[in-house]
Amino acid sequence: MQKIRKSTTILVTNDDGIYSEGIKILAESLSSLGTIWIVAPQHEQSAVGHSLTLHRPLRVNEIGKRRLAVDGTPTDCVCLAVNGLLDKKPDLLVSGINRGGNMGDDITYSGTVSAAWEGTLLGIPSFAISTLPDSQGVYNFKPAAEFAGRMAQAILKYGLPLNTLLNVNVPNTNGVSISQYKFTRQGRRIFGDSIVEKVDPRGKKYYWIGGTDLGFENIPDSDLLAIHQKCISITPILLDLTNYASIKDLLTWKV
Amino acid sequence: MQKIRKSTTILVTNDDGIYSEGIKILAESLSSLGTIWIVAPQHEQSAVGHSLTLHRPLRVNEIGKRRLAVDGTPTDCVCLAVNGLLDKKPDLLVSGINRGGNMGDDITYSGTVSAAWEGTLLGIPSFAISTLPDSQGVYNFKPAAEFAGRMAQAILKYGLPLNTLLNVNVPNTNGVSISQYKFTRQGRRIFGDSIVEKVDPRGKKYYWIGGTDLGFENIPDSDLLAIHQKCISITPILLDLTNYASIKDLLTWKV
Repeated sequence: MQKIRKSTTILVTNDDGIYSEGIKILAESLSSLGTIWIVAPQHEQSAVGHSLTLHRPLRVNEIGKRRLAVDGTPTDCVCLAVNGLLDKKPDLLVSGINRGGNMGDDITYSGTVSAAWEGTLLGIPSFAISTLPDSQGVYNFKPAAEFAGRMAQAILKYGLPLNTLLNVNVPNTNGVSISQYKFTRQGRRIFGDSIVEKVDPRGKKYYWIGGTDLGFENIPDSDLLAIHQKCISITPILLDLTNYASIKDLLTWKV
Repeated sequence: MQKIRKSTTILVTNDDGIYSEGIKILAESLSSLGTIWIVAPQHEQSAVGHSLTLHRPLRVNEIGKRRLAVDGTPTDCVCLAVNGLLDKKPDLLVSGINRGGNMGDDITYSGTVSAAWEGTLLGIPSFAISTLPDSQGVYNFKPAAEFAGRMAQAILKYGLPLNTLLNVNVPNTNGVSISQYKFTRQGRRIFGDSIVEKVDPRGKKYYWIGGTDLGFENIPDSDLLAIHQKCISITPILLDLTNYASIKDLLTWKV
């Protein structure tokens, strides 16, 4: 095992909320690597995307030693932690363990990934980690927590590419440890008709965003394919979204 | 002027809300190009990021002909519009005109850009358009609206690169028409200390996310630089965030 500096500070957050099982086991798995700060949402914040609370103040509840609950989004938590709550800039940020995969286009909706995004913007090596449930919908976070420890050590050792976060997904293994991983690309899900239209007790229509998951496109080396093959997926995500390759063509346009 | 098919359908949305000045003038400027549908948030939804409302139903109010207000986010609006509310799949989606620029890392927080993102995911050529205020903070949307019409025609003519939206920013010109544009890359802002800590009337601390804008990094061809030079910025944004270039290095890691 690699020797970690005693002064290493690790910020742990998530979007399922500070009381979720995934964040507790994640913090435990990292505890031998440095000083752990948990700064996470008071309540579940799934699918809030990369949203920042600007229109109201935020409250922080100290629910334990270096364990702070914020009544905001995962992005708020990282922003507050790094710019005010922590005594030093963290050496690493880990977001998760999310209940459910964050693959393909999920990552732009994902609060878990957003927290790692915000960390990266603030110059902190960051990764997001999510795990899939078994066929009964039950989560076993242990294999993902174990891998998170290895991932953290690797990042502290190698450093991350510029402006890049890692998005880690761990398949369900029914609790069995897993070490096979692949560096992957962002895949794409196939969705069915995703709106449910109904009528309320007063006769007024309402709509509910649903979405039938019809599988995924067969893109080689994709995150979705790796998970399907029961392999851990690690996707490097670049914060610069410019489509450089398209600019040559665009320059031929007359707008 | 390019001849547009009579059957062209254009979906217009924003994040400032359906009653905002920017969306009205945008819809007007596009009206000669096809049938306009406005599906936009009932209330302002700035900085909601790419968030989708899953935990509650959504209400739709028909406030005019092909003019629908949704009590949700910009992403909700696009999802509902395309999967249920419109009679056909739109040929183009235009999101804006946003009050204030969406440049650099703003775009991952921006509701305006998120709507164009969702449109692109759903296979609709999409662009986001934002404009900057004058030195008094006053907005003049007319130059941006004029350019939106030209941009729309160009996209209907040339088509967009795969999985790519265009993020358009128009500088303040005090109402003077502007046609100089540049294809740009995503820049980066420089922020100062961004948290304000205060004490409420009951003696409890609270935090407010602020952020002093200290300018931007001097990145050639960036969106921020183009706007600074009083030129319209058009950034092609790719939905695949994979950092392909980093994978070779990552493959040398032992996790």
